[in-house]
Amino acid sequence: MDDKWLRRILALLFLLLVFAVSNSRLTAESELSIMPLPAHAIAGTGSLPIDGGFQFISEGYTEPRLDEARSRFLVRLEQQTGILHFPPASPKQPGFIVRTSAPSAPIQELGEDESYHLEVTEHGVLLSAPNPLGILHGFQTFLQLIRTTPQGFVVDSVVIDDQPRFPWRGLMIDSGRHFMPLSVIRQTLDGMEAVKLNVFHWHLSEDQGFRIESKTYPLLQEKGSDSNYYTQDEVRGIIHYARDRGIRVIPEFDMPGHSTSWFVGYPELASGKGPYQIERKWGVFDPAMDPTRESTYAFLDAFIGEMTALFPDAYFHIGGDECNGKEWDANPRIRQFMLDHQLKDDAALQAYFTKRVQQLVTKRRKITIGWDEVLQPDTPKDVVIQSWRGQDSLAQAAHRGYRGVLSAGYYIDLNESAAQHYAVDPLEGATAKLTPEEKANILGGEATMWTEFTTPENIGSRIWPRTAAIAERLWSPEGVKNVDSMYRRLAIVSQTLTDYGFNYTATSSDMLQRMVGDADDAPLRVLASVVEPPKEYDREGLRDYDLYTPLNRMVDAVPPESDRAREFRRIASRVAAGTASPDEENQAREWLTTWRDNDAILQPTLSRSSLTAELIPVSRGLAQTATIGLAALDAIEQRKPLGTAEKQQFMSTLKLLEAPQAVLLDMVVPGVEALVGAAHP
Amino acid sequence: MDDKWLRRILALLFLLLVFAVSNSRLTAESELSIMPLPAHAIAGTGSLPIDGGFQFISEGYTEPRLDEARSRFLVRLEQQTGILHFPPASPKQPGFIVRTSAPSAPIQELGEDESYHLEVTEHGVLLSAPNPLGILHGFQTFLQLIRTTPQGFVVDSVVIDDQPRFPWRGLMIDSGRHFMPLSVIRQTLDGMEAVKLNVFHWHLSEDQGFRIESKTYPLLQEKGSDSNYYTQDEVRGIIHYARDRGIRVIPEFDMPGHSTSWFVGYPELASGKGPYQIERKWGVFDPAMDPTRESTYAFLDAFIGEMTALFPDAYFHIGGDECNGKEWDANPRIRQFMLDHQLKDDAALQAYFTKRVQQLVTKRRKITIGWDEVLQPDTPKDVVIQSWRGQDSLAQAAHRGYRGVLSAGYYIDLNESAAQHYAVDPLEGATAKLTPEEKANILGGEATMWTEFTTPENIGSRIWPRTAAIAERLWSPEGVKNVDSMYRRLAIVSQTLTDYGFNYTATSSDMLQRMVGDADDAPLRVLASVVEPPKEYDREGLRDYDLYTPLNRMVDAVPPESDRAREFRRIASRVAAGTASPDEENQAREWLTTWRDNDAILQPTLSRSSLTAELIPVSRGLAQTATIGLAALDAIEQRKPLGTAEKQQFMSTLKLLEAPQAVLLDMVVPGVEALVGAAHP
Repeated sequence: MDDKWLRRILALLFLLLVFAVSNSRLTAESELSIMPLPAHAIAGTGSLPIDGGFQFISEGYTEPRLDEARSRFLVRLEQQTGILHFPPASPKQPGFIVRTSAPSAPIQELGEDESYHLEVTEHGVLLSAPNPLGILHGFQTFLQLIRTTPQGFVVDSVVIDDQPRFPWRGLMIDSGRHFMPLSVIRQTLDGMEAVKLNVFHWHLSEDQGFRIESKTYPLLQEKGSDSNYYTQDEVRGIIHYARDRGIRVIPEFDMPGHSTSWFVGYPELASGKGPYQIERKWGVFDPAMDPTRESTYAFLDAFIGEMTALFPDAYFHIGGDECNGKEWDANPRIRQFMLDHQLKDDAALQAYFTKRVQQLVTKRRKITIGWDEVLQPDTPKDVVIQSWRGQDSLAQAAHRGYRGVLSAGYYIDLNESAAQHYAVDPLEGATAKLTPEEKANILGGEATMWTEFTTPENIGSRIWPRTAAIAERLWSPEGVKNVDSMYRRLAIVSQTLTDYGFNYTATSSDMLQRMVGDADDAPLRVLASVVEPPKEYDREGLRDYDLYTPLNRMVDAVPPESDRAREFRRIASRVAAGTASPDEENQAREWLTTWRDNDAILQPTLSRSSLTAELIPVSRGLAQTATIGLAALDAIEQRKPLGTAEKQQFMSTLKLLEAPQAVLLDMVVPGVEALVGAAHP
Repeated sequence: MDDKWLRRILALLFLLLVFAVSNSRLTAESELSIMPLPAHAIAGTGSLPIDGGFQFISEGYTEPRLDEARSRFLVRLEQQTGILHFPPASPKQPGFIVRTSAPSAPIQELGEDESYHLEVTEHGVLLSAPNPLGILHGFQTFLQLIRTTPQGFVVDSVVIDDQPRFPWRGLMIDSGRHFMPLSVIRQTLDGMEAVKLNVFHWHLSEDQGFRIESKTYPLLQEKGSDSNYYTQDEVRGIIHYARDRGIRVIPEFDMPGHSTSWFVGYPELASGKGPYQIERKWGVFDPAMDPTRESTYAFLDAFIGEMTALFPDAYFHIGGDECNGKEWDANPRIRQFMLDHQLKDDAALQAYFTKRVQQLVTKRRKITIGWDEVLQPDTPKDVVIQSWRGQDSLAQAAHRGYRGVLSAGYYIDLNESAAQHYAVDPLEGATAKLTPEEKANILGGEATMWTEFTTPENIGSRIWPRTAAIAERLWSPEGVKNVDSMYRRLAIVSQTLTDYGFNYTATSSDMLQRMVGDADDAPLRVLASVVEPPKEYDREGLRDYDLYTPLNRMVDAVPPESDRAREFRRIASRVAAGTASPDEENQAREWLTTWRDNDAILQPTLSRSSLTAELIPVSRGLAQTATIGLAALDAIEQRKPLGTAEKQQFMSTLKLLEAPQAVLLDMVVPGVEALVGAAHP
């Protein structure tokens, strides 16, 4: 073959490659409607109709967990399509080959291969993976690929090769502050499976409650839980349930602080005099374990022995956060101990405690994980740091050789937007500057669901759908970060979760209906659709809350993020920039009119229920905001100009309307501020 | 004391009595918002705030079932109010005295005393009953009494003395045609408890499936169930669950017809040649047990022995309906048997069979219940007749001394309105003419949920809330029959059930969302809010359905009865009669305008999903109906007269619009017909 031919062939191959890349390679953000987006996807032609079951063919390794997964897959398929019955073993059914090379570890391990290969053609499906973990993920991907079309439900032909970016993709639930029944835990695990999270971190002890049965020290649950705790059998059930879904379970026993509930039954563990009561308030409290007595470690040795035997995972979380040291400082015996042992401050004393506890964990062949505070100068190198402080803290740890998990930025209890969480990357800022070897110490991240303001009723709307955005951050390639695409797909995933029976949107509706009693709830929903709970820790400052405060107000019913208000802000900023379409301007006007007029309809009903009376100023405020918005729109559209004084007046009114009312933020204000800002006199 | 004084005192007492009756006696229909309404209720003054738990005081007899009921009561209280935590044993908590005189029967019996006395004052609650059954009912009444007020949740002071009108208040679920998972059964039992139904009739075998594990004849479930059956342990669990809620469980094994699924594993039981397959179509089929062979009775003897041991209730249902006799007629051996035994026709042969089976049931000390067909000239007097035929059939049976239960009129699978079911009384028509002794044979009634067109997904919206209206018919005094009051209270009870987690309204929404895929579902909801499934057995004639037909269309998503359309009909009839208020006229105009304009918004999306394409003419039809309605309204309001020809044209168009489209009825048509009828040219 001469050069010319070779060059021609090369040119042809190049063209084919360009064609393949430009036409077939899915610019995943624009095409697939799934979450998290896969690492690689190539679109094919045609699509597979989903109108019956599949002829499943198992190849290679198999185990009962795979059969369970297949049954669950079929149930989900039914829930998503409403197609209930498939003719048995009909040759019309397309083949669904599940090819598994080998078993996964008997106890799921950090860093196991979770990759899978999924091929869908017009005629069938091939799902293959090195081990069952990938198969589990592949089933979830397939379910999300189902689309509604004029020809029925289909999955478009596609080849996906997928694996996670980070090996530790977690969600923590705080069962300590508000106890969460098993049904909530199971539903959460179902949702985690759907978005490929693989670590369930179970916060099991708090000042407000000790939530697991100890057979060694039964007074822990008997006196420390208000009878709200998980039995060991129930815990074993959850561990099994999680394993079936490719999820590890890591228990956390927070110490030496956040431990009041331990001391109700065992006051001798504490540094203060006692007696102790279960804490009923929220915050950081003084009670702390006594790090100076050998009896403390003897107790913890037996306790950790019991719990490490119950939880098979290799990691064991000992908390370590927010110990204020006040009980230590107030105890002369402890002060003397510090002098004797040259422990210069409370941090040093806590480091001593952590080291002792960590040795107890190591003795059980487990690896310790703890919050930032456990990291001290001589912390053993295998301790994993979970950071609520941020990437700087994590980078320092990684630089020193410690592995870490990011939680700062993933605190889903703080009512921030999905976009805010989505923007947080474990490898940005300080961690981005690490060497590749140091970067490998960053294992991933964990969303944290603290439950001061969360009940079994509303926890669904606190976790979902925003946690799916965090799951994508931790699974998908670093470059996947288009926020519009994320929101578009988030809405679809949210609907899919609803198909699976996680009725968190319905629960919000039910809560609103409860607030108005027998009255029509439509006007209340109009208000509810554009307000949000306060952000970060603002709520604590607005009212006195404790364990007994009913969480049945609007702030508890509405989702942390208002889709309607976000959409209004987007349109308002386009109107302000002069880039809005006529349809968008009309939409803005229509919404503003609805919000302005809603108050007159809603007001008469608000005073009829004690749960809605506080909303009187909120509803009036929304009408004010919308009135200003309409005036600004008129000015922009040059129907009616806006005087300078009037504009200033509007701006200062809006400033006032930014403040929370009835523990709620009016989220229309920012969009209206943009409109007023753009309304030239 | 002279006469004059006596007369004065008597007059005073009389006045007091009149005062008491006119002021305090609740005209229950106007005041209490509960369902079923109680037999007697007297309003007090003031109300009990519900803002914490209660100090429960148990008096008299107690048992674990009462503790369970109290825990469940507290969970419901939490779900209804969103008040999650109550300070433990606070003296602020009002007392809640539960006073039980004696145990109920070890196995719940027909006709046990279910009465209770409930006193609520500003300071506390007294709930007393002769046995735990009344306590269970009283808890449910209390929960329904909770109201939303400006002062918080309260229960108004009241004294209620309540007991049921009929001792047999049932709901049947057909697990044969569509298998219903345990979660559905448990939720149904929860709902039954809430509305004081006390018999769960479990239809466990059908042509399409044999749904319970038999250890004696395992091929019944192994070959006859597509693996969808209840294990005996699960059944025991359900029986226990039902007993905890004051509900008896009566199994039905339908024979000699409706029994194809038995013959897949045991063809020797059948009258035909076989082999048999599980039936996949709907209807009445030929396969029937062979009543002529002794081996049939030997089989049934062992089977009935097994099942009567499993189900503790004194009653055992043997079906008996719709045996068409074709397999008998086609079998020469059976024809010969009939000649030999002087059995003149198939009915006589079935009577012979029933008698033999009934003896097997009696042998186990159980009482037989069967559908109308089991009643023959020599049927033993303790057999109970469940009538799908109606009061005439029931009256004849009662007159002959048989006890009976009415189901005709309570077929909730036929998509009739709550008002239609509510109007049906076991003691009206032929039964009303019975002697008091004969009337005592009418035990009550049973709603029947046949499941040709019902899946685990939509069964909730088929049962609830209409079954609550039937429950009231069977519990409340005969005179309680105001339909407006019923609908008002039904809406409230429906909301309460939703508070308890029966998300049947949410499920309907989810199904609509699924139909449109990612598109906005609001316009589809407008259409969905005014259409209904066809009534009675019309659906079967409109399309070919079988077990494999997906039930994921609009007809499956919408409730059997449209609240919005009913309200429109009410207003339209007032407009037509000239008695409507201006607000009502405006409301009618607003709705009609929405319905007219919805088509233009909805049409573009309908063709995008295979599940909605069929709705194109339905949506167009609604627009037509509404356009005519607006023209009629204009004519009535004398804005624009209506010509005679135009009126006739409208009427004939409306006649066409009455016909089902896409298996749906446009329920706006009747109201518009009323408007056109009233629009004088």
